[in-house]
Amino acid sequence: MPELRHNVLTREWVIIATERAKRPEDFIKKRKEKKTLPAYVATCPFCPGNENLTPPETYVVPDTSSWRVRVTPNKFAALSYQGERRRAIQGIRRTVTGVGIHEVIIETPDHSKTTALLADAQVETVLQTYLNRFLFASRDPRVEQVTIFKNHGEAAGTSLEHTHSQMIAAPVITAQLRDRLINALGHFDEFGECIFCRVLDQELKESTRIVHESEHFVAFVQYAALSPFSMLIMPRRHMACFSEITDAEAADLARNLRRTLGKLYHGLDDPDFNYSVRTAPTEYAGVKYYHWYVSIIPRLTKLAGFELGSGMFINVSLPEENASFLRGVKVD
Amino acid sequence: MPELRHNVLTREWVIIATERAKRPEDFIKKRKEKKTLPAYVATCPFCPGNENLTPPETYVVPDTSSWRVRVTPNKFAALSYQGERRRAIQGIRRTVTGVGIHEVIIETPDHSKTTALLADAQVETVLQTYLNRFLFASRDPRVEQVTIFKNHGEAAGTSLEHTHSQMIAAPVITAQLRDRLINALGHFDEFGECIFCRVLDQELKESTRIVHESEHFVAFVQYAALSPFSMLIMPRRHMACFSEITDAEAADLARNLRRTLGKLYHGLDDPDFNYSVRTAPTEYAGVKYYHWYVSIIPRLTKLAGFELGSGMFINVSLPEENASFLRGVKVD
Repeated sequence: MPELRHNVLTREWVIIATERAKRPEDFIKKRKEKKTLPAYVATCPFCPGNENLTPPETYVVPDTSSWRVRVTPNKFAALSYQGERRRAIQGIRRTVTGVGIHEVIIETPDHSKTTALLADAQVETVLQTYLNRFLFASRDPRVEQVTIFKNHGEAAGTSLEHTHSQMIAAPVITAQLRDRLINALGHFDEFGECIFCRVLDQELKESTRIVHESEHFVAFVQYAALSPFSMLIMPRRHMACFSEITDAEAADLARNLRRTLGKLYHGLDDPDFNYSVRTAPTEYAGVKYYHWYVSIIPRLTKLAGFELGSGMFINVSLPEENASFLRGVKVD
Repeated sequence: MPELRHNVLTREWVIIATERAKRPEDFIKKRKEKKTLPAYVATCPFCPGNENLTPPETYVVPDTSSWRVRVTPNKFAALSYQGERRRAIQGIRRTVTGVGIHEVIIETPDHSKTTALLADAQVETVLQTYLNRFLFASRDPRVEQVTIFKNHGEAAGTSLEHTHSQMIAAPVITAQLRDRLINALGHFDEFGECIFCRVLDQELKESTRIVHESEHFVAFVQYAALSPFSMLIMPRRHMACFSEITDAEAADLARNLRRTLGKLYHGLDDPDFNYSVRTAPTEYAGVKYYHWYVSIIPRLTKLAGFELGSGMFINVSLPEENASFLRGVKVD
């Protein structure tokens, strides 16, 4: 019989289609041909030498010859860098000027490499760059919520193949984040514990949904994962905000992230995916009830009318089988 | 400058990308070739004569020769018809047995017709069938939330081209619906009015986002629409639950729905879309603070990492332009 599982972090229900579940192998991307990317593409705005195709950089990690990581404003920014944050309230209408920061983080000069194929040190530099831009954006008094995210592949919403991430710093906090903060606060008040720490503790005890453990982070498929192979990488140490990460933890997260994405890359033949850093804003650093993490969502299935019309999800795979499959994919 | 708009019904924020917005014409589906479907396909489980390819029907609207609308259990049901609803609570885990009802509503015997191409009377029969199945499912003591929805086209999650809808009656109420009920209740307590009635009233006054008005229903693009051309069709009369609809209203909704979908079909060249009936459960019939409606979501853009990672949306079109464009599409 199918089973409904409750996600305690988000209060969402998911139907785990236990009986008609697909096997992990069924999600391996069927490619027309194996695509190998060149290291340099003359028309790519993210390749070294083509810097004039993007707005001037806002941050760069230099290399002996050029750069290792480069950050520029998004040429097609969703929010305006210039202007004041102003809120208009008229009757039931609430409008805020679309000001904020929208940057692109070019993760490597090498056009041919995605995260799974980079060196650990390079991924670490990317994460340190995230931290730099996160702190920069958080200092902007117009900004309430900073989202760092990556779109990999067409189904994940990108057409640019040169590996990159983005940051959008928005002038409002979303109802979704507010609801999750309140949910976590309610759990803390009732049980005297961080709900995220509790979830991680239980996952480690049960161990069936663990994908990859490293010194400071644990990658796992959630008990109530909404979609096939979606995973969290959670810090073992309690931290509400991404800004609290130490250098040692960032280095460890780089190793963990690269291996976890490597398991997807090699196990499912480079599926399209999104990841994002889900964190409380910096002003929440130190609170006992919230806990930041990285959320990875492979884009293997489509949202349909049921999900859009109800807020409930159907997962056509078993979280335990997803994790077992990925544990079995060897990465260096 | 871009503008952030607040959706008062869902508390979601959307970035309306006013400056880099695409024109309505940019969303017209680029087809390889215009596809005309045959009226009958020998292998289609939903075509007349092939009834043995589906589970036995649970409801049928007969016609002189065979049937006008036919309902069967979904062959690949997400929930089990058999079994008791049982909830298991162990520590932080909440699990409910996956029992409920999952049916397919075959909207016409004619393989070649989508809703926009059907006769008004046929769409009315479909809506009366929705009502029958909604009431049937709502009487099942295991059921808490009934979702009626349609997936049209591959991007909307269907591979079967014979036009059909589905109903999933689930044994839990979702956090999303609960949050919207609470949000509406809060507005009622504070302002003494239904927030949906207020939104509809304001849309009618401003008129710039209205797509199609009929005697009992109004189709409009929301002020804070999350995606291009997404629309609500809302009853003018205050009703919390779909079960409260009268026969006259159902007939009018059929005409409105067919014309509104016709505007999408002819204006954007048959885009993929989902629609769903968003309603309070039957036990809420008569409450003053909630209001049911039909939500139509054309699948013209992809959710990417920002939306998945923040709960905020970017709409790359202007609701007012969407509505103006659709008003200009003539349908009979």
